[in-house]
Amino acid sequence: MLRTRLTSAFHLRHPIVSAPMIQASDARLAAAVTAAGGLGLIGAAYGDRRWLARELKRAANTRVGCGFITWSLARDPGLLEMVLQHQPAAIFLSFGDPVRFADHVRACGIPLMCQISTLAQAHQAIDAGADVLVAQGNEAGGHSTGARSTFTLVPDVVDLATTRAPQTLVLAAGGVVDGRTLAAALALGADGALVGTRLWASTEAAVAPAAHARALAATGDDTLRTSVYDIVRDYPWPAPYTARVLRNDFLDQWQDHEYELRANITQARHTYQRATAHDDFDGAPIIAGEAVGQVNEVLPVATILERMASDAHTVLNGDRIRRG
Amino acid sequence: MLRTRLTSAFHLRHPIVSAPMIQASDARLAAAVTAAGGLGLIGAAYGDRRWLARELKRAANTRVGCGFITWSLARDPGLLEMVLQHQPAAIFLSFGDPVRFADHVRACGIPLMCQISTLAQAHQAIDAGADVLVAQGNEAGGHSTGARSTFTLVPDVVDLATTRAPQTLVLAAGGVVDGRTLAAALALGADGALVGTRLWASTEAAVAPAAHARALAATGDDTLRTSVYDIVRDYPWPAPYTARVLRNDFLDQWQDHEYELRANITQARHTYQRATAHDDFDGAPIIAGEAVGQVNEVLPVATILERMASDAHTVLNGDRIRRG
Repeated sequence: MLRTRLTSAFHLRHPIVSAPMIQASDARLAAAVTAAGGLGLIGAAYGDRRWLARELKRAANTRVGCGFITWSLARDPGLLEMVLQHQPAAIFLSFGDPVRFADHVRACGIPLMCQISTLAQAHQAIDAGADVLVAQGNEAGGHSTGARSTFTLVPDVVDLATTRAPQTLVLAAGGVVDGRTLAAALALGADGALVGTRLWASTEAAVAPAAHARALAATGDDTLRTSVYDIVRDYPWPAPYTARVLRNDFLDQWQDHEYELRANITQARHTYQRATAHDDFDGAPIIAGEAVGQVNEVLPVATILERMASDAHTVLNGDRIRRG
Repeated sequence: MLRTRLTSAFHLRHPIVSAPMIQASDARLAAAVTAAGGLGLIGAAYGDRRWLARELKRAANTRVGCGFITWSLARDPGLLEMVLQHQPAAIFLSFGDPVRFADHVRACGIPLMCQISTLAQAHQAIDAGADVLVAQGNEAGGHSTGARSTFTLVPDVVDLATTRAPQTLVLAAGGVVDGRTLAAALALGADGALVGTRLWASTEAAVAPAAHARALAATGDDTLRTSVYDIVRDYPWPAPYTARVLRNDFLDQWQDHEYELRANITQARHTYQRATAHDDFDGAPIIAGEAVGQVNEVLPVATILERMASDAHTVLNGDRIRRG
């Protein structure tokens, strides 16, 4: 057992929270992570109200949290009410100033987790009263500013929290995929880790088999940061946000040719939509982090969590990181 | 004491090699690192023959290695001969295919260290017969492809070496600045670390006091990757290489305005040269890694190495990482 402030605060067996990944992080995956001793989060992503209502219903008797894209939630704040009525284990806010929602979440007695990718954003999250800072490195799959890496951001955020808000926990996000990387995250001072890509490649994740097959075959050199899919979907991600995804034919065509993409947007959008409808990942995106090269097998969530924690325990020669 | 395959192979007290930093890594710094129980490297950088001859003379009775920019060395291969005559502790090659020089270095019985920043480059270095792979993440100060991060590249390279060349050692480069990050590097599977920024901010480094003062005041959010200084100096770095440096007025003016920079190159070059001549770091570059926020004091090399190793030992609960 790895005991940390996170496992104590949330009564977990393992210091692992699942990332609220779009589509993949439905009620089934979130519940499986909690059942395996971590904390599962449903990914509300861009705020599909019907999808979210269904997943909350499916998760009714499980202890899971819910993650939002903050700028997307601002367009339909009622979604937060909907989730709060289900007494979630945590509310997780990414990508935008959390202050607008923070007081309400905390007034309901729900722990607030804020994902940040710079020290400046960490200050903002502390100002908002976050209970958990999720320090997201450029390694992570999906959107991020890409400004900082897990390896340097985590110690910086740990030191900031120690100074400004010592009760605030810190999770490492981006690159944590096995026992070595979980041990490294704890060595850097984190109280636990947010795990995305490794749990995306689990039996319980809502992922197309063809997407899993591509990710298992990929190496760590096969991801890149891009705006191409945000342009083609007309998603208003503000600069400097980009998303880390697996390389494919569509990106080979349009990456670094965004001007031409905009000039040919109707045709490109048609290609994208057709590919997405047919699980054709030459055209449809696969969101994956830089640690995808370490993901070589689709496994049950319980196996993933047990192995990560057990291997990290071995690397660290014990159950606790000692702080000098 | 932290014992690893690196400390055994090179007879070191600490699993730390100093980065061959331009200007800062002269004979004095390299000798100080070796005297403190690590392995010091002189930075031959762009191949200033007079400077290198002088530093090799100053280092005559010390056990230090020497690092080259491979594409630069190719323009004056005689420099390698000059260094090999001094029986260096290691030859360190970065940024380019090492194969042209590798056989000769190894035929002289000198250990070959190859810095790589992707898995593809790691394959190339193994093909060349490297004794040590230095896995350089995007966090590092100075030039890199920026393609990968320390946190994911190190485990990937460790696994590749285990499969293809199990005798080959792996160092983590980029972000290693204190006991936590050294412990994390070892947890990720590295045999040791290449340390740049932390040793740049040492008493023995050849660095202008005004540069030190700026770096000590900087946070981890204050670095960026840029081509601006390569353009203004007319250094032929091939794509996709960029350099991580501290933000300053010059970069605020020209970063993301490289087209305008080229259109105003004469004036910009004048500003740059004036600034460099006067240690004016509004205009002159300070090369620093993303971990610069953890560097808050200029310290003697011996203190830096002792603290890093002692703190890492504490974090890891012992002298050796155990491998599951």
